[in-house]
Amino acid sequence: MIKVALIGATGYTGRELIRRLLRHREVEIRHLSAITEKEEPISSIFPSLSSNLILRSTMRVEEVAECEVVFLCLPHKVSMEYVPSLLDFGNRVIDLSADFRLKDPSVYEEWYGERHAAFILLKESVYGLPELYRREIKEANLIANPGCYPTSCLLGLAPLIKNRLIDLTSIVIDAKSGVSGAGRNPSLPTHFPEANEGCKAYSLFTHRHIPEIEQELSGIAGERVAVTFVPHLVPMDCGMLSTIYLRLQKETDLIGLYKDFYNGEPFIRIMNEPPVTKDTTGTNLCLIHPKSEGKRAVILSAIDNLIKGASGQAVQNMNIMFSFPETEGLL
Amino acid sequence: MIKVALIGATGYTGRELIRRLLRHREVEIRHLSAITEKEEPISSIFPSLSSNLILRSTMRVEEVAECEVVFLCLPHKVSMEYVPSLLDFGNRVIDLSADFRLKDPSVYEEWYGERHAAFILLKESVYGLPELYRREIKEANLIANPGCYPTSCLLGLAPLIKNRLIDLTSIVIDAKSGVSGAGRNPSLPTHFPEANEGCKAYSLFTHRHIPEIEQELSGIAGERVAVTFVPHLVPMDCGMLSTIYLRLQKETDLIGLYKDFYNGEPFIRIMNEPPVTKDTTGTNLCLIHPKSEGKRAVILSAIDNLIKGASGQAVQNMNIMFSFPETEGLL
Amino acid sequence: MIKVALIGATGYTGRELIRRLLRHREVEIRHLSAITEKEEPISSIFPSLSSNLILRSTMRVEEVAECEVVFLCLPHKVSMEYVPSLLDFGNRVIDLSADFRLKDPSVYEEWYGERHAAFILLKESVYGLPELYRREIKEANLIANPGCYPTSCLLGLAPLIKNRLIDLTSIVIDAKSGVSGAGRNPSLPTHFPEANEGCKAYSLFTHRHIPEIEQELSGIAGERVAVTFVPHLVPMDCGMLSTIYLRLQKETDLIGLYKDFYNGEPFIRIMNEPPVTKDTTGTNLCLIHPKSEGKRAVILSAIDNLIKGASGQAVQNMNIMFSFPETEGLL
Amino acid sequence: MIKVALIGATGYTGRELIRRLLRHREVEIRHLSAITEKEEPISSIFPSLSSNLILRSTMRVEEVAECEVVFLCLPHKVSMEYVPSLLDFGNRVIDLSADFRLKDPSVYEEWYGERHAAFILLKESVYGLPELYRREIKEANLIANPGCYPTSCLLGLAPLIKNRLIDLTSIVIDAKSGVSGAGRNPSLPTHFPEANEGCKAYSLFTHRHIPEIEQELSGIAGERVAVTFVPHLVPMDCGMLSTIYLRLQKETDLIGLYKDFYNGEPFIRIMNEPPVTKDTTGTNLCLIHPKSEGKRAVILSAIDNLIKGASGQAVQNMNIMFSFPETEGLL
Repeated sequence: MIKVALIGATGYTGRELIRRLLRHREVEIRHLSAITEKEEPISSIFPSLSSNLILRSTMRVEEVAECEVVFLCLPHKVSMEYVPSLLDFGNRVIDLSADFRLKDPSVYEEWYGERHAAFILLKESVYGLPELYRREIKEANLIANPGCYPTSCLLGLAPLIKNRLIDLTSIVIDAKSGVSGAGRNPSLPTHFPEANEGCKAYSLFTHRHIPEIEQELSGIAGERVAVTFVPHLVPMDCGMLSTIYLRLQKETDLIGLYKDFYNGEPFIRIMNEPPVTKDTTGTNLCLIHPKSEGKRAVILSAIDNLIKGASGQAVQNMNIMFSFPETEGLL
Repeated sequence: MIKVALIGATGYTGRELIRRLLRHREVEIRHLSAITEKEEPISSIFPSLSSNLILRSTMRVEEVAECEVVFLCLPHKVSMEYVPSLLDFGNRVIDLSADFRLKDPSVYEEWYGERHAAFILLKESVYGLPELYRREIKEANLIANPGCYPTSCLLGLAPLIKNRLIDLTSIVIDAKSGVSGAGRNPSLPTHFPEANEGCKAYSLFTHRHIPEIEQELSGIAGERVAVTFVPHLVPMDCGMLSTIYLRLQKETDLIGLYKDFYNGEPFIRIMNEPPVTKDTTGTNLCLIHPKSEGKRAVILSAIDNLIKGASGQAVQNMNIMFSFPETEGLL
Repeated sequence: MIKVALIGATGYTGRELIRRLLRHREVEIRHLSAITEKEEPISSIFPSLSSNLILRSTMRVEEVAECEVVFLCLPHKVSMEYVPSLLDFGNRVIDLSADFRLKDPSVYEEWYGERHAAFILLKESVYGLPELYRREIKEANLIANPGCYPTSCLLGLAPLIKNRLIDLTSIVIDAKSGVSGAGRNPSLPTHFPEANEGCKAYSLFTHRHIPEIEQELSGIAGERVAVTFVPHLVPMDCGMLSTIYLRLQKETDLIGLYKDFYNGEPFIRIMNEPPVTKDTTGTNLCLIHPKSEGKRAVILSAIDNLIKGASGQAVQNMNIMFSFPETEGLL
Repeated sequence: MIKVALIGATGYTGRELIRRLLRHREVEIRHLSAITEKEEPISSIFPSLSSNLILRSTMRVEEVAECEVVFLCLPHKVSMEYVPSLLDFGNRVIDLSADFRLKDPSVYEEWYGERHAAFILLKESVYGLPELYRREIKEANLIANPGCYPTSCLLGLAPLIKNRLIDLTSIVIDAKSGVSGAGRNPSLPTHFPEANEGCKAYSLFTHRHIPEIEQELSGIAGERVAVTFVPHLVPMDCGMLSTIYLRLQKETDLIGLYKDFYNGEPFIRIMNEPPVTKDTTGTNLCLIHPKSEGKRAVILSAIDNLIKGASGQAVQNMNIMFSFPETEGLL
């Protein structure tokens, strides 16, 4: 049994993280906080959570100090203010923001418009995608929990790139996300009568997950990889589908290749048919369907953006770090 | 061909009103305005509208002065600031706000928390429900266009009350509305991931449409009528269903009664089965299904809250005022 | 650790039941079956379930015989063919159909149009609503798991009726359900482009949950209670809201009364504000908000129709029967 | 004023076609038919249509003979049985099925699995995309009304291909459609609780609109063009977004190019921002946003699949054929 803290508990990733931690047999939530007006039970904010834990309106050092691990569900740029001192306390940290995902501080500055406040830690942080970095995660003190789009794209592409089977200049990713991906702050585009019954692309050539995807693909490939990536908003709460287009170097049995590559992975399932994002809802699953015709291939990779794309993957990382069964809290 | 003006053009009722006016053969839109940052074509704000009419950022007196009729799609309390001077210009006015619906200024003050700024006009204004007040509408200079909930409730109840067939103390109205009824301003309850996939009641015993419903029912009955009214939010863009429960004085052939009462009405259809709100979407129809078992009765009344519940009814009122065919612009 | 069987595993209640049984620490699923063309892993039918359990195409007696409890997710009229022999095997049975809910076989025949095939067992069966019958459930061999509408209505009304606080002739229930309540068989009314973006009432005065609600309310009241009940379909997957209208005998502090009545209940939460059904999604919670003005009262009772309204309640019943912690598998 | 007939009136394209014909000032609907059990007013089938026209259960030759034009909203393979005799009667025909879109009967046979029953007419039929073939449409006796996916793709690609600006081997089309595109027949994948809140790809490399898109692109290019095309189902009633990826031969001002190309087109609007499909709902508009970065380009093309993608375009074709104002009935 370990004690955990969660800072930034009033967004959707916070809510889903708490839900899974409450189900977890090896964990006690010791501290919950967020910037709020008053301290009240978390069930007052999220009635679906059966817990009377009090949400603190500021971080309580004495509570956090007792914890083996701290989850940060904070906005980008805020996280990096917290991480150094938490590590100094001796906490291990799982950060769900983007702040420690990009290894190169100049890339961070380019895409986030600001100098990184703790760039020295970028070397130390481990990119928390268990299917690729399980060993490093086990030892890590600072996990950069991957973005939702990168999770679905990287899991969809890794087997082909590791095996050097594709033309690396040919990758086009058309990604679709449920609206919860936009967070919990109201805005006109996410106002129900605007977002419902409509579908649109956004952030053409400018989405901040692009450098994250390219960094990780380049790492796998051992050479610089660039992608064309266009995200779309789809009128559903959650769910994410990445449709990945590419050219194979040669005709390949993709289903067999993917099944081998992900053999034994508890959360990856290779499908014989195109997956529906709905089959991932509330689960930590990534459903992948690779299909080719000649040298043209399409890879479909579906996750729940809030779970495998955020909070579930954070719990999976914790399970690895503390040698708990990897599916604990995630069924 | 008449000239019309529309003030408050950037909400959902404004948009749907413009759409119908563009389809109307007897009307030219001379003036559109709203409080906005810049003047631009209305199609830049609402790309679904095929019109390059410029949206003015303030009312232009010289444009409005040319108009035979002015539609006000303004918030409550703002409308009553505009109406007196528009009437002075000689415009006829169709006001879609609640400001001129309640005949008793003290009731207005009680429910809207503010003294009425033009209460002298309350006597003059005509409640714009054509099925009940067609003759008065024809002559009116100021139309108080009914609220969406009142429209569906009054059309559902009028035949029974006019014919003195029900126990007036027994009326319970459970009303369901699409989210567009909450307007176009973003808020947490109408944020897509909050409003989608959920249903809830709101404003128990306190909704501002209660005095409007009670005023009109009392007028029909010739005595004071009170109702229990609970509105609900349903995860759909538009559509409104009022399920009305009551006790009959005696067993009655309701379908026959309703068909007689609404005989010849172009927008009322008496259904043999429970209507789906979807069958009213985009139309000015009110679909009514009355059903009884012994002396217990349930009346189902469905409209599109934005059309028969607002903008379509406004056009219907204009058609009556100017002796245009009543369905013009509304098919 | 007990062994359980589930017969009728390919509907939505079967799916949600399996999901909760897989999370349950004290249970092993020994047998799954349904009438299907081929035997395959349950994850092939429901990819969201992380289990390779084989779905049998017919009941295997030798597997079921090993089980301490059998869940039946079968259609009405089919269940009653299975129950007698399962009880003879020594299984305890939790039946999610309506077959053993009505105590009076003539009422069953009236509403289901068929003579009951095992009416002798109606006396023995226990109505599985834990908040009212926890003691009887503990000892029962045959649980009639309540319907979804009755669950939400009974939990909303029990405190008032037990305390004899209401006019029993005044009860009107306007209930709203997500579309999963209609089951998994496609039909025109549940075809997406028909059901989406629409709301409608159905089964006026004829819904089969009426006698179930009236039987149980009459039992609580100690006298015959009749209700007006109208169910509605709302465009969402799951969720159920019952809006209950009634007259109080006297003005009462409803919130206090309800909090006392349900004190200690793990799945009932008395809310200070109207609940959103969404806050029950995936949970076994019933969120209740009672509100009165003078002697008029409105009780709002929200559940997930598939969970507290079916599969979650079935697990709760099992937990009680086998003295497991009542929330096990249900967080 | 012309007389028109509509055969196959009980699907979604039939419904939307009738709605627009009822609004049309130059048209009288003389005949409606479909294979149905009984003859009844069309408003009994589609209550949203304000018309008492009787739906015939079989085609009435004497009614059709009076018509200047016949619309066929029939399934593929059924249409081609009707067309020859209708043309013999002297009717002009607008066929909304796929039967007369493919010019090469062997391609038809390959993709539709059957020999074409009237292949002699393939030469005569005109592909009814007004923005490309307005002149031919004016004179045509047989219009093959384009498919929804081809409409959005061709309008998105035509300016670039006509101007020979792109690498013709680079085209990838990721298309998203609302569920009404699947027609009005219920099925498990379109059952509300299955289709709602989910997104999926389907028909990888095998969708029947592929040869139609390739035929037309090849025609514009003057050489064989092949595309990668993957359609997706999105949980909304209607709306279609094609996201088209390609490589430019050289950097180009796309917005300027597109505005020139479609100058004067009443239904094409070139957007400065990514369009939302919702802004096309119920309209005959195609909203296009082209964007490039260097030589990589993304073209977004949005329509309502039932309107510009089917029934609205059919009316537009009729307007051209009979020299009516092109927007008549379509505002």
